[in-house]
Amino acid sequence: MSNKPINDPQSRRQFLKSTGMVVGALGGMALSRPAQAVPIPAPIPQQWDTTVDVLIVGTGFAGLAAAIEARNAQAEVLVIDKMPLLGGNSVLNGGDLAAAGSKMQQEIGIEDSPELMYQDMLKAGSGLNYPELARTVAEHSVEALEWAQSIGAQFNVVNYHGGHSVKRAHQLVQRSGSGLIIKQQQKAREQGAVIEQRAKLLRLIVEPDGRVIGAEVRRRYKFPDENSGEIAYIRARKGVVLASGGFSQGVAMRQMYDPRLTDAFTSTNHPGATGEAIMAACMIGALDTQMDWIQLGPWTSPDENGFGYVPQFVERVVGYGLMVDPATGKRFFKETGNRKERADAIIQLGHPAIIIADKTNTLNMVDPGQREGALKNGSLKPYDSLEALAKAYDMPVDAFVAQVNRWNEFVSRRNDADLGCMIFKDAVPNVTPPFYAARLWPRVHHTMGGLAINKDAQVIGFDLKPIPGLYAAGETVGGVHGAVRLGSVAMTDCIVFGRIAGKNAAASA
Amino acid sequence: MSNKPINDPQSRRQFLKSTGMVVGALGGMALSRPAQAVPIPAPIPQQWDTTVDVLIVGTGFAGLAAAIEARNAQAEVLVIDKMPLLGGNSVLNGGDLAAAGSKMQQEIGIEDSPELMYQDMLKAGSGLNYPELARTVAEHSVEALEWAQSIGAQFNVVNYHGGHSVKRAHQLVQRSGSGLIIKQQQKAREQGAVIEQRAKLLRLIVEPDGRVIGAEVRRRYKFPDENSGEIAYIRARKGVVLASGGFSQGVAMRQMYDPRLTDAFTSTNHPGATGEAIMAACMIGALDTQMDWIQLGPWTSPDENGFGYVPQFVERVVGYGLMVDPATGKRFFKETGNRKERADAIIQLGHPAIIIADKTNTLNMVDPGQREGALKNGSLKPYDSLEALAKAYDMPVDAFVAQVNRWNEFVSRRNDADLGCMIFKDAVPNVTPPFYAARLWPRVHHTMGGLAINKDAQVIGFDLKPIPGLYAAGETVGGVHGAVRLGSVAMTDCIVFGRIAGKNAAASA
Repeated sequence: MSNKPINDPQSRRQFLKSTGMVVGALGGMALSRPAQAVPIPAPIPQQWDTTVDVLIVGTGFAGLAAAIEARNAQAEVLVIDKMPLLGGNSVLNGGDLAAAGSKMQQEIGIEDSPELMYQDMLKAGSGLNYPELARTVAEHSVEALEWAQSIGAQFNVVNYHGGHSVKRAHQLVQRSGSGLIIKQQQKAREQGAVIEQRAKLLRLIVEPDGRVIGAEVRRRYKFPDENSGEIAYIRARKGVVLASGGFSQGVAMRQMYDPRLTDAFTSTNHPGATGEAIMAACMIGALDTQMDWIQLGPWTSPDENGFGYVPQFVERVVGYGLMVDPATGKRFFKETGNRKERADAIIQLGHPAIIIADKTNTLNMVDPGQREGALKNGSLKPYDSLEALAKAYDMPVDAFVAQVNRWNEFVSRRNDADLGCMIFKDAVPNVTPPFYAARLWPRVHHTMGGLAINKDAQVIGFDLKPIPGLYAAGETVGGVHGAVRLGSVAMTDCIVFGRIAGKNAAASA
Repeated sequence: MSNKPINDPQSRRQFLKSTGMVVGALGGMALSRPAQAVPIPAPIPQQWDTTVDVLIVGTGFAGLAAAIEARNAQAEVLVIDKMPLLGGNSVLNGGDLAAAGSKMQQEIGIEDSPELMYQDMLKAGSGLNYPELARTVAEHSVEALEWAQSIGAQFNVVNYHGGHSVKRAHQLVQRSGSGLIIKQQQKAREQGAVIEQRAKLLRLIVEPDGRVIGAEVRRRYKFPDENSGEIAYIRARKGVVLASGGFSQGVAMRQMYDPRLTDAFTSTNHPGATGEAIMAACMIGALDTQMDWIQLGPWTSPDENGFGYVPQFVERVVGYGLMVDPATGKRFFKETGNRKERADAIIQLGHPAIIIADKTNTLNMVDPGQREGALKNGSLKPYDSLEALAKAYDMPVDAFVAQVNRWNEFVSRRNDADLGCMIFKDAVPNVTPPFYAARLWPRVHHTMGGLAINKDAQVIGFDLKPIPGLYAAGETVGGVHGAVRLGSVAMTDCIVFGRIAGKNAAASA
């Protein structure tokens, strides 16, 4: 952690510049390029290299759920992934699955319902959510949890995420989505699905009547070399399922929707989250929706790379510890606010915020492995006293100590009279050293927009009709989450719509 | 005007229901339709029915500006419009053109600059604006005004619109965009452009290398009968310019981007503003951006249809009179806020707001024809006293009178200590009867999203490259205004990018 004076105007300006806040807001985009041919749908090949019933693009939660269900329906299944490693962002995911009304919730006395989850999704989504998609996710959320358990995934704790009315994030024992991805891969392969790495979708192949019948791909592709490998044509007798994630890492693409998000903004995502499959679908007439709603995660640390360990610390201690502006030593936004609210509030500060929780609240809530990882890479620091902590971040000591005392009173009374933060019933005043602290600065985390689908996971075209033979699920899809996706709903969304897409693709005429 | 008790919860609920606020937020969309073939690009015809250099779609400000410039560059030009009447929304427009740094501004002592206008656009646009497009509009705004004057349009007053830093809306003497459209048509025809009504674009025709070379159209089309007229093929040797407006009236289309905007929300737009040309471009790979930013006009009255007369009254008296919530008799949002802020604040009330100005402020500011029109259709009402006005709207009389007195003090001091509304230097206290009042409820007014273009008005494809032979301008385009378009900037945008599109299409290889 830096001891440099973050209150100094000069270093704030440099910080803003380094994160693109200045450059992005005022700088121009290089939109003018040499005129080039627009790829139209690939021609139907004389000969197909491979023929299957269902071709699935992507090996994350959604793609593998689709593969398992398509195989259940007796379809011949090929799953392709452009990356050498399987699982995309799903293996980086924290392993939290939102389910409303589960047995695990009931056992710890949490009252919840799909209706409450649906309302939370609409509220966070500013009402932009496609109602039937959001409702489908909420109503099938417990089923998604039980399906994951049925193939061997283990969940052992129910967490809170900002913007939800109750704790409903069921976390994998591994504290990572890889705990489910491993089971999904095993199950898909056991059932006979073929998974091919380093095969990249280039263009979809469409019959004259508009039906998607296959894809042009690049096999033995070496990300990110666009000339690597060889072209091949894969016929999909029944359907193609796009489950290849979002475009948080696609800098030029995301700037077409939000020009501020220059390459000075880093991302929590795996490097392959560049959105070409969405664009390939749009090139054959698929309708993209709400693409400008790009989520910045409010819980990443500038002191570690990628997603890192700090987000898990933050999401476990909100409602227990407190978040302050180091310039004043005071709280500035409710810690249990939704992702967009919190990210906007931190960006508004113009410099990183500080999150703090004492030993008791941290030990009770945060997984030891996650805490140790963050301590080891230096993004989380322990301090013997509040004074020492304040000094390390150049905070006004008295104001900061007074703020912690005020917060601790709120914790005792279970009521935040200042900002209306939720305070959980097992929270205790932060009085026991060490006091843990981390700096927070947002990163591009999730692209809410994507292809429009109906509740049967059929992709909708720019003529507002379903495109025969084309399905999508997961972050590739827009409209489920509206303006803001709540934490832990992605995993539910992927499983629910991945299964629907796989089942319907296999049944497609 | 209704004398029914608008404070009564039951009638409020009914009002919300009738406007779709309840239905839209919770109801499902009928996305599932029978599977149908997706139209792919129209095949290249054996024979063309008509051949020109430049085909322009739309006869509003942008389309006619493009026609004039394309003819200036010696191109053979055909302009088509699907409607029987020319001018689209432009003839319904209030005739306000934003220009920053004009002679008219200087004459009345207004200091302004393109940089200030650009910053106002970015602020209203939440920074989502494509910087190079917004800057192009601001920097060419005075040139756009002078160009309109050069072809015979007359402007005689500089108005204020919410969200601008200064008065910069130069208004046509006709108080309607038709004052310019008539001159543009004359000029275009004088120069030899052919204008064909009732010809609807169906599909764009694309060469195998991706270049747009023409269009499939329906001639002698009778809106909205999709089977009327006959198919024809128009070859465009140099380019096609899409300048056919937005999709405020396209209910199914706008719900793909904002599901709340059901048919219970009416629109200020002409009935043909249904967006098919945007969709036709997307079907051949054009990239649409920021489509979910759909503007509701905060100044329409539920007591008249369409755009009506009341918006002109409102935009002239903000900064002079005041807007109140009839439930409390008090102001609730700054009257000079931008369109989205004000529309959101009124929708939040759950019932129409009331705008009020006295005789002096109204006579000084509002065009007599506009005022008489509103008085005649009953959407604007005069009252002899504040008490009579309060009673007519079931407002708490004392609270309302106290609010007007408080506002009048702010007017005298030129400082709104409550909500920070701008107060213009020629505003006077509202003390002279009659007191004029109108009810306000938002309507769908402008679709900020549309096709992505670069500063040369070339349409960008989903491969992030310009599509050869395809240009767009005006409301068909997205990214100029970002999240919120400021009043009076549409006219500037249409002229600036219409001219660029026409010039570049004519010069296209």
